[in-house]
Amino acid sequence: MSDAHSSRRDDALALLARLEPDAPARVANNLDDFHAQATEILLGFAFADVVARDGIDLKTREMLTVAMLGAMGTAPGQLEFHLRAAMHTGVTREEIVEIVLQVAVYAGIPAAMNAMSAAKAAFRAQDAKR
Amino acid sequence: MSDAHSSRRDDALALLARLEPDAPARVANNLDDFHAQATEILLGFAFADVVARDGIDLKTREMLTVAMLGAMGTAPGQLEFHLRAAMHTGVTREEIVEIVLQVAVYAGIPAAMNAMSAAKAAFRAQDAKR
Amino acid sequence: MSDAHSSRRDDALALLARLEPDAPARVANNLDDFHAQATEILLGFAFADVVARDGIDLKTREMLTVAMLGAMGTAPGQLEFHLRAAMHTGVTREEIVEIVLQVAVYAGIPAAMNAMSAAKAAFRAQDAKR
Amino acid sequence: MSDAHSSRRDDALALLARLEPDAPARVANNLDDFHAQATEILLGFAFADVVARDGIDLKTREMLTVAMLGAMGTAPGQLEFHLRAAMHTGVTREEIVEIVLQVAVYAGIPAAMNAMSAAKAAFRAQDAKR
Amino acid sequence: MSDAHSSRRDDALALLARLEPDAPARVANNLDDFHAQATEILLGFAFADVVARDGIDLKTREMLTVAMLGAMGTAPGQLEFHLRAAMHTGVTREEIVEIVLQVAVYAGIPAAMNAMSAAKAAFRAQDAKR
Amino acid sequence: MSDAHSSRRDDALALLARLEPDAPARVANNLDDFHAQATEILLGFAFADVVARDGIDLKTREMLTVAMLGAMGTAPGQLEFHLRAAMHTGVTREEIVEIVLQVAVYAGIPAAMNAMSAAKAAFRAQDAKR
Repeated sequence: MSDAHSSRRDDALALLARLEPDAPARVANNLDDFHAQATEILLGFAFADVVARDGIDLKTREMLTVAMLGAMGTAPGQLEFHLRAAMHTGVTREEIVEIVLQVAVYAGIPAAMNAMSAAKAAFRAQDAKR
Repeated sequence: MSDAHSSRRDDALALLARLEPDAPARVANNLDDFHAQATEILLGFAFADVVARDGIDLKTREMLTVAMLGAMGTAPGQLEFHLRAAMHTGVTREEIVEIVLQVAVYAGIPAAMNAMSAAKAAFRAQDAKR
Repeated sequence: MSDAHSSRRDDALALLARLEPDAPARVANNLDDFHAQATEILLGFAFADVVARDGIDLKTREMLTVAMLGAMGTAPGQLEFHLRAAMHTGVTREEIVEIVLQVAVYAGIPAAMNAMSAAKAAFRAQDAKR
Repeated sequence: MSDAHSSRRDDALALLARLEPDAPARVANNLDDFHAQATEILLGFAFADVVARDGIDLKTREMLTVAMLGAMGTAPGQLEFHLRAAMHTGVTREEIVEIVLQVAVYAGIPAAMNAMSAAKAAFRAQDAKR
Repeated sequence: MSDAHSSRRDDALALLARLEPDAPARVANNLDDFHAQATEILLGFAFADVVARDGIDLKTREMLTVAMLGAMGTAPGQLEFHLRAAMHTGVTREEIVEIVLQVAVYAGIPAAMNAMSAAKAAFRAQDAKR
Repeated sequence: MSDAHSSRRDDALALLARLEPDAPARVANNLDDFHAQATEILLGFAFADVVARDGIDLKTREMLTVAMLGAMGTAPGQLEFHLRAAMHTGVTREEIVEIVLQVAVYAGIPAAMNAMSAAKAAFRAQDAKR
C-alpha cells in the first residue's frame, strides 16, 4: 500500500492515543501479530476515517460508542475499554450511569446490568491509577 | 395504581411531546388500545424514569438512542421516529450523518446502510413539513 | 432418505396443523418449492424433533416461541404467525399482552413495541375470521 | 422521588426474593453502589411493574425469561441466574431441558449449547445446596 | 482527502460492478446524496480494503456474506442484494440452498426461513432478466 | 426412537470427527449428560442433516460457520472450536485472517476484534499440538 495508507495507520494510532494513552502500542501489536495490514485496515477505518472526523466531538462520540456496545452486548471487553476511553475524553461517571440506564430502555435490563458491571470495572481501573 | 403512577404517565407523555409534538396522542392511543396500563408501564419507564432525567441533555440522549437503534438494527420504524425526534431536539443533519458513519464502525456496513435509509426518510419528512 | 424420514415430514406437518389449520399446505409448498428436502430437514427438526415432544405442553411452547421471537426482533413475519398459533393453542390475548410487557424487560422497549404491533395484527386476523 | 416510588423498590425486591431468597441483598447492593436510584428504576420496572403482574404465573414467566435470554445469547450470567430462579419457582430440570431444545429451533444450535452449559451450572449449584 | 483516497472510491466501485453490473451508479448516488465522502469511507472500507483482497476468491466471499447476513437477520434488503451478487460471481442456486440450510443450524429456523424468502426473491429477479 | 434415528446420531458423530478427531467423545458426553436424546436431536440436525450434505464441501462450510459465528458474536467458545475445525478441514490461517477482516465489514470492528482473539487462541492450540 501507498504512503497515503501509512499515514492512515499513523492517524488511527494518534486517535487511539487520545482514547487511552498506552493503547496504541498494545492494540497495534495485537493486530500486527495477526496480519501486517490489520491495524491499517481496521483501525484506519474506525479511527482515521470515522472517529477522527469533525462534526461530533470525541467525548460525544465515546458516549455513542458506549451506548452502542452496551446495547449490542456482544463485546464486553471492548465495552470496558471504551468506558475507560470515555472517561479519558471527559465523560463523567454520572454521565456513564445515565447511559447505562438508557441502555436499559432500548436494549433491556440484562444489557444494562452487563453494562453496569463493565462500568464498575472501568471505575475501579481508574481508581487504581490514582 | 395510585396517583403517583398517573403522574408517571403524564410525565412520560410530556417528554414524548418534546421529541415530536404530535406523538403523544398517537403513541398513547396505540398503547392504550393494547392494554390500559401499557402507556404507563412502558413509556413511564422509558421517558419518565430514564430519558427525562437530568445528567445528559435531551439532544445528546437522542443521539445515543439513534446510535443504539442503528447498531441493533431490529427496530427500523423506531429508528426513523428517533431520527425525527433527534432533529426536534436540535441534532443537525450533519451530526446524523456522523452517527451513521460511526454505526458502520461498531455494527458494520449493512447496519449503517439501513440507518442511512432511515435518516433519508426522516430528512424527507422534515422537508415535507416546511 | 428412508421411510423413517418421511414420517418425520408427516409428523412435522401434523404438529404444524395444530398451530394453524391451513398452515401445512402453505408452508410445505413454500419449502418444497425451494428444495425437495427443506420441509423434512427444517420442519422435521423444529416440529417433529422438538416442539412435538412431551415435557412442555404446546400452549406453553408457543408462549416461549412468541417471547423468543419478540426478544430477538429479527423475524417479524414469523412472530405474527406464532402469535396466531399461540391463540390457536389456547393462549389468551391477555397472556399475549403480558408476554409483550415481559419482552420489554428483557429486550427493551423497541422490541416490545414491535411485538405489540405484531400482536395487534394477529388480533385483527383473528377478528376477521369470526 | 415519592413514597409511591419507594414502595416500587420494596415490591421489586419482594419479587426478587421469590426468584432467589438471597438475591435481594446482593442485587440491591450491586445496584445501589452504582447509583442510588438504579434499584428502583431498573428492578422497579422489571419486577414491580411487569414480572409481579397477574395474568401469567411466576413459574411460566421464568420459563419465558430463560427462553428469551437463551435465544438472545448476550447475558450468560443472567441466564444462569434465571435458570436457578426458574427452579425456585417450580420449573423442573426436565422442563429446562425442553426449553434448551426449543432455543435450538428458534435461535440455533450454538445458542442452545450455551444455554445447556448455563443449565448444567445451575443444576450443579442446586445440587451443592442440598 | 488525497488522490490516494479517490482511487479507493474507484477501486470500491470497480469491485461493486463485479457484484452487480448496474449497482455502482445506483449505490454511489444513494451514498453521495447522503454525504460527499460516504461512498469513499463506507464502500472504500468494504470493497477496496477488504472484499477486493486476495486470499479468498470473490465467489467464496459472497457465500460468506450471504451466510453472515442470513445469520444476523437485520439487513434483509442487503441480503437480497448479496444473493443476487453471489449468483453473479458464480454461486449456484444449489449452493444458495445449502447456505440457507446451514443458516438454520447456526442461527435458527426463522433466520433460515427469512433467508429462503430472500433467496426466492433473488431467483425471481434473475429469472426476470433472462 | 427408531434405528433410523440411531444412525443419525452415528452420522452426526462421524461428521464431528472430521471437524476435530477428539471432539465426538467429548461433545457427546457433554450432551448425553444433559439429556439422552440431545446428541441425536441437536447434532443429528446440525451435522447429519445439514453439514454432512453434498453441495458445498466441508472446508467451505466451516468457512461459512466461522463467518456466521464471528458476525453473531454470541458464541465465542463455539467460534474457537470451529476455527480449529476449519483448520482441520483445510482452511489456512491466511484464509482465516481474511474471514476476520470480512466480519469487520458486515458486523463491525468489535466483532472482528473478538474473532481475531478467537483465531489467535485457535492458532496457539494448533501450535501446541505440533
